[in-house]
Amino acid sequence: MNTQGKQKHVIIFEPSGRSGRLSEGKTILEAAQELGVDLQNVCGGQAQCGKCKVMIVEGTLQQHDIASSVKNLSSMGEAEKKFFGDQKQSNGWRLACQARIQGDVAVFVPDESRADRQIIAKDPGQRTIDLKPAVKRYCLELIPADLDDLTAAWERLKAALREKFGLTNLKTDYKVLCNLYKAIKRGEWKVTATVWMDTEVVDIKPGFTERHCGLALDVGTTTVAAYLCDLDTGEVLATESMVNPQVVYGEDVMSRITYTMVHPGGLKAVNKAITQGINHMIRDICHQARISEKEIVDLAWVGNTCMHHLFLTVDPEPLGQSPFVPVVHHSFDVKARDLGLIVSAGAYVHLLPIIAGFVGADTVGVLIAEAPQNFEETVLIIDVGTNGELVLGSREKLICASCATGPAFEGATIKHGMRAAPGAIEIVRIDPVTQEVKFKVIGKTGWNTGQKGIQAKGICGSGIIDAVAEMFSARVLEKSGRFVSGLDTPRLRLTDDGPVFVIAWPHETASHQEIVICQRDVRAVQLAKGAIYAAARLMMQQLNVTQLDKVILAGAFGSFIDKKSAATLGMFPDCDLENVQAVGNAAGDGARIALLNTDKREEANRMAREVAYLELTTSPDFQNEFVNAMHFPE
Amino acid sequence: MNTQGKQKHVIIFEPSGRSGRLSEGKTILEAAQELGVDLQNVCGGQAQCGKCKVMIVEGTLQQHDIASSVKNLSSMGEAEKKFFGDQKQSNGWRLACQARIQGDVAVFVPDESRADRQIIAKDPGQRTIDLKPAVKRYCLELIPADLDDLTAAWERLKAALREKFGLTNLKTDYKVLCNLYKAIKRGEWKVTATVWMDTEVVDIKPGFTERHCGLALDVGTTTVAAYLCDLDTGEVLATESMVNPQVVYGEDVMSRITYTMVHPGGLKAVNKAITQGINHMIRDICHQARISEKEIVDLAWVGNTCMHHLFLTVDPEPLGQSPFVPVVHHSFDVKARDLGLIVSAGAYVHLLPIIAGFVGADTVGVLIAEAPQNFEETVLIIDVGTNGELVLGSREKLICASCATGPAFEGATIKHGMRAAPGAIEIVRIDPVTQEVKFKVIGKTGWNTGQKGIQAKGICGSGIIDAVAEMFSARVLEKSGRFVSGLDTPRLRLTDDGPVFVIAWPHETASHQEIVICQRDVRAVQLAKGAIYAAARLMMQQLNVTQLDKVILAGAFGSFIDKKSAATLGMFPDCDLENVQAVGNAAGDGARIALLNTDKREEANRMAREVAYLELTTSPDFQNEFVNAMHFPE
Repeated sequence: MNTQGKQKHVIIFEPSGRSGRLSEGKTILEAAQELGVDLQNVCGGQAQCGKCKVMIVEGTLQQHDIASSVKNLSSMGEAEKKFFGDQKQSNGWRLACQARIQGDVAVFVPDESRADRQIIAKDPGQRTIDLKPAVKRYCLELIPADLDDLTAAWERLKAALREKFGLTNLKTDYKVLCNLYKAIKRGEWKVTATVWMDTEVVDIKPGFTERHCGLALDVGTTTVAAYLCDLDTGEVLATESMVNPQVVYGEDVMSRITYTMVHPGGLKAVNKAITQGINHMIRDICHQARISEKEIVDLAWVGNTCMHHLFLTVDPEPLGQSPFVPVVHHSFDVKARDLGLIVSAGAYVHLLPIIAGFVGADTVGVLIAEAPQNFEETVLIIDVGTNGELVLGSREKLICASCATGPAFEGATIKHGMRAAPGAIEIVRIDPVTQEVKFKVIGKTGWNTGQKGIQAKGICGSGIIDAVAEMFSARVLEKSGRFVSGLDTPRLRLTDDGPVFVIAWPHETASHQEIVICQRDVRAVQLAKGAIYAAARLMMQQLNVTQLDKVILAGAFGSFIDKKSAATLGMFPDCDLENVQAVGNAAGDGARIALLNTDKREEANRMAREVAYLELTTSPDFQNEFVNAMHFPE
Repeated sequence: MNTQGKQKHVIIFEPSGRSGRLSEGKTILEAAQELGVDLQNVCGGQAQCGKCKVMIVEGTLQQHDIASSVKNLSSMGEAEKKFFGDQKQSNGWRLACQARIQGDVAVFVPDESRADRQIIAKDPGQRTIDLKPAVKRYCLELIPADLDDLTAAWERLKAALREKFGLTNLKTDYKVLCNLYKAIKRGEWKVTATVWMDTEVVDIKPGFTERHCGLALDVGTTTVAAYLCDLDTGEVLATESMVNPQVVYGEDVMSRITYTMVHPGGLKAVNKAITQGINHMIRDICHQARISEKEIVDLAWVGNTCMHHLFLTVDPEPLGQSPFVPVVHHSFDVKARDLGLIVSAGAYVHLLPIIAGFVGADTVGVLIAEAPQNFEETVLIIDVGTNGELVLGSREKLICASCATGPAFEGATIKHGMRAAPGAIEIVRIDPVTQEVKFKVIGKTGWNTGQKGIQAKGICGSGIIDAVAEMFSARVLEKSGRFVSGLDTPRLRLTDDGPVFVIAWPHETASHQEIVICQRDVRAVQLAKGAIYAAARLMMQQLNVTQLDKVILAGAFGSFIDKKSAATLGMFPDCDLENVQAVGNAAGDGARIALLNTDKREEANRMAREVAYLELTTSPDFQNEFVNAMHFPE
């Protein structure tokens, strides 16, 4: 609009404190744009989205004193009243795109109206994530084509995005072209465009949509986790997990690599298993959140190097032989449709970078979630999965390593093991005198004791760690891991399978079969924790560290690991228990962080290059340390 | 075979005139290969395919005189007899791969045995094209990874491309990652990388490859043409054409649009038809040139706007209703795999820009091939297909328009019409006094008169134009297009189908059924030429042009259009025949130019924006001009 020669008024924005003198008649939104105040503008100033709500402030606001802000604005039109009722009901709230300046005004921008607002994610980690997603949503009303303006639909959309939102040099995914006409027709020339990295239109929907979603994926050798997030709020809308369907092709990374090498078409089969599995999760998670799969417009992915290659159908053969070099290090954006995923046709999957053949994007996820690079003190991070990945160091230097642990901590290969899902025993306590057991089950409240309705189905990672640690503390197990003989409890029994310890009696289980820990289960736990301990010791030697200041226990096995149980097992070198922290699935959190903040994607690439990799397989000391670490500690 | 010390004999190939002295015992095929004579070899010299048939010439062949060619070859074996019967029955025909030289020999290579026989445009323009393809090929020897250098394969390749060729900030297609390890392994750390637009690695092959190919596609409503080019030399390695398999969904653009709107899944079905058809052509053309489909690493595409949308699975609905606005104007790069094409997995298809709903990328192809923007004089370009697209103007101003002509000029809807392929009558002459006919057939030399072996299968576009023009000149047709009655020639007969004029007698055809032109055929030609004439008139009015300086006739219907016949029909307003030029498939040439030179891609976008579009459907004058233009001119 022509504002030349018009009277100027003071406008003050809080909490930023930015202020300026602007011409009469400008909207608050225009003022905010001129003064560089961060304010959402999804519908292009059409009073459609309601995202630019601001509070008009009367009286003293910090150092300013403007007595008649409300009066100094144009009065409310019909479009605005739909959001607030009339001016009296609105309690000083206005849409910034509608309210025009007619005098000095003080404006408060609430957090929810800021484009880069912070949210506290409601996840176990209570992490604070700055919202800066890769995709942004723009609501547009296009001018219909007629015989005097034969501009094509895409060029029309592109011009509108440039004019209203200042987006230049945009490309489009061809899938957007496939849907563009239908979207325009159904939305009657109103559409919502999703733009990736300010460069490419990746999605088009009819009308003004109110939400767009992203999916963070953490693909482990045994366990796969998915987090569905609202990209406007960062909120986790739903989570899902499953056993990696690739387990039929081998329980560990090496056996899956071998499968792809030995079987013609093996790589395709193994890839198909995870793709179909993830699509199944996508259907479930969208069903849970009652959204369509096509509302997922961005994805972030973490997982170990082998899972990464198999997910991309990249030949994992080099990961199976020295020098164990991956095919790619850097983060990678690939169209979800190229990977066969059923989300929005134009969506990208951002795969986080890889450090080495056995330290993958999952560890990078842990790094951006836990940020050891910011620590003064020496921290050891253990990410427990089918492989254990460890990071040691501080802001001065970080090293990482990997060791094979087997899937015991994820409930696999354990007699009554299961993944962390409703019905899984996740906490176990054993009376050191009576050897009596109490446990908690996922999806139920309280202990099993005296409660009806507790029906355990199996025992998950954290429950297994608890069970073995408590069995040792209650002297059911010797230091070597053997079952103590001659103990006076009906829970310790000899079966065809050797000695077992009963955790849940038949009446406490869904199958009415008892749930036990057997000798083989204990051995699997010993092998796993011994490998982690040995790896940690070697890493400490490498960095000349004699004492850990802090230990962080991470893993995708459901409930948090019990740090006392982990210490009892001897999973990590000595550290004051006060300074041991269990954080849940830090790799998955890292995926979620990368989904919500592109700065973190860059940081991930930087860190993946900076952290040093320690190869344990070639270290002669590793086997020695490993053998020594098998026993339970005093 | 060992030919050292053996006696040498003269071998002469016609019509190329190439000759040389070769060792006794060599096959004619080997001789052809040594002398650079183009001769098909599909089965690798196994006497399986019969594609290398040659005629052994006795006596004088142009300047040569070899009396005993047949005798100077090894006698026929069993494999060869399957094709010809015994030596006597064969009438001098041999398989080049079987006949071995035992003395001086003269050999005639028929068109059908040539590998690069060109049907669509017998001469792809003789255009000079500066080679500046979108993809470049880089041969690299990588330093193998070891425990001291764990750099991933892609980062290793990227570094080598930067160091050796100065390529920075390269991205890679994820499909390259899928093939990278195998390429390195098979090539023993030697690989050939193909880089698109200096930005993205799109293909990787083991070892140092010696060739990379591109494909230019011209997708018309009725006819589809493909040109396989060597991207290093620009040479056309092979050409193919086919009837657009979408014709089952409607003969013209409108009926196909309607099909997609009326039938659920219709758009997918119509898209699938062309995709499968093109894949079939790709297989054939690669077979012809003896390359793998995966050696095609770049593609350029032209076609009308509707074909463009259907090829991309973009909804063509807006093209079927006023204001006939396309979904996209600008040129577009899309992964060939997204379109389901069986070429190299990372290859892009470059679709040339679109001018309007009925003036598509094919016209843009004509523009970059014929460059009217560089003309001082006023030129009219007519691109004849199922729609006629016209461009009029000079360097000062250019306008374009489109008119529906029907597929008559492509041989469709004509009683004995066929596409331009071996066996099609392509040239027709009628004696104005006796009404006797002579014709030429694609794949045969000379006129039918007095020759054996001429077996016509049908009549293609250029033949139809000739036939109708000659029928008018020979007074078989009235000015109105009606058959003259009472003419004293056995060729003009009344059938159940009305009057027909016989072009080929039963003994001259492959089916032993006569080939005729019927009244409906003449009407189809009149409608088509009338529409083109009317469109040209209106365009001249628009530009205030009273006289054409130059007319260019283009079209993908095989042999060049005969300009005299076109003038006889009244296909275009008056112009000195000296200044009328037939150029063959200029749109396809444009695709080939864009394939080979990226500057021309930019020029195409510039021109598509600069040329003005004249909408004829809304012009009340068009119908009047059209009706007036139906008659044949004096």
